[in-house]
Amino acid sequence: MLACTEDSAHDREHIYRVLHLALEIAATEPGCDREVLAAACLLHDIGRPAQFADSRVDHADAGAMQAACFLRENGFSPAFAGRVGDCIHTHRFRSSAPPESLEAKILFDADKIDSSGAMGVARTLLYQGQMGQPLYTLRPDGRISDGQGEKTPSFFREYRRKLEGLGDRLYTSRGRAMAAQRRDAAAAFYQSLLAEARAAGDGERIPPTLWEGP
Amino acid sequence: MLACTEDSAHDREHIYRVLHLALEIAATEPGCDREVLAAACLLHDIGRPAQFADSRVDHADAGAMQAACFLRENGFSPAFAGRVGDCIHTHRFRSSAPPESLEAKILFDADKIDSSGAMGVARTLLYQGQMGQPLYTLRPDGRISDGQGEKTPSFFREYRRKLEGLGDRLYTSRGRAMAAQRRDAAAAFYQSLLAEARAAGDGERIPPTLWEGP
Repeated sequence: MLACTEDSAHDREHIYRVLHLALEIAATEPGCDREVLAAACLLHDIGRPAQFADSRVDHADAGAMQAACFLRENGFSPAFAGRVGDCIHTHRFRSSAPPESLEAKILFDADKIDSSGAMGVARTLLYQGQMGQPLYTLRPDGRISDGQGEKTPSFFREYRRKLEGLGDRLYTSRGRAMAAQRRDAAAAFYQSLLAEARAAGDGERIPPTLWEGP
Repeated sequence: MLACTEDSAHDREHIYRVLHLALEIAATEPGCDREVLAAACLLHDIGRPAQFADSRVDHADAGAMQAACFLRENGFSPAFAGRVGDCIHTHRFRSSAPPESLEAKILFDADKIDSSGAMGVARTLLYQGQMGQPLYTLRPDGRISDGQGEKTPSFFREYRRKLEGLGDRLYTSRGRAMAAQRRDAAAAFYQSLLAEARAAGDGERIPPTLWEGP
């Protein structure tokens, strides 16, 4: 796990936060196998380097396989390795692969809670800086887009597409409550950033006041 | 200028925002030469690629020279090129090179206002993502540091060292007022992020509840 944490948004601190958040949710979910859950949390992002090397690779698919192999090689049962792999396989937002077991739902929720609130904003920005993506794009009329319906990557688009409604897409009631607690911090930041960007010219290039005087 | 904007935190939108903010300040400062100021704003970060290529290069020094040469080559007078270069030379926080002319002080303030508030937080995080720097580091006792007095780079350290007291270091009264308006948005984000990070285990690795039960 430690050898697979390369970028600031998915560093080892993310992994440990997800483990803690997952165990906090598990405490409210009877019947959760905390050993399966903990192994899945610790290994859930080990497919990231494969995805960075080739963007066609999905780190959830790659990581599920790598984790199951690693666990088998280290003496865990096929059943245990399979259950951990299933959790990792379904930890992303994908309608084609929703989480099914209780442990998979808890990993999913814990990972998404670490993408909510101020933490979600901060991790999104770290990732976008690494990828060279902008804070916002301009609409055809040259004004700053608020991100709604945008086609090209930007922070505002990511906020509107993923961060804003994230809490409604969780599986556990404790997870939804934790995401709801964090919602206002992310919304306030988005609104402040949009207001500050628009107050500084709203995408206008050369202000008329330069030539005409104030 | 457009050829020299490479990273998300210092893209062309940053340049245009600084131009707008500078002209807004200039409107309250009698005697400002808005042509010198506008040229300095547009060219103030052209030394960034040289600094990225070699971290010993200071982009303010390199950019001042590049800008003055560019302006001379394009028919501007030595006096004009020199005044623009002086603004660019002093646009960073450096006790050894504080801004002296009115235009230099306005460029300095406008650039720092774009590093304040939610915008300052967002641009800092984009830059740190690109540089592979973390959100926070752990103290010797394993708990999350709030950034105060930290030695290694992190978002919390950058907030405490640069963003938190930024408004007090500006030269114009309009600039100080603009930075003050933005202060609460940045402070609220920092406090939320610190609280969320600490609530998710406060840097603890394997939680005792994993083995002991909740």
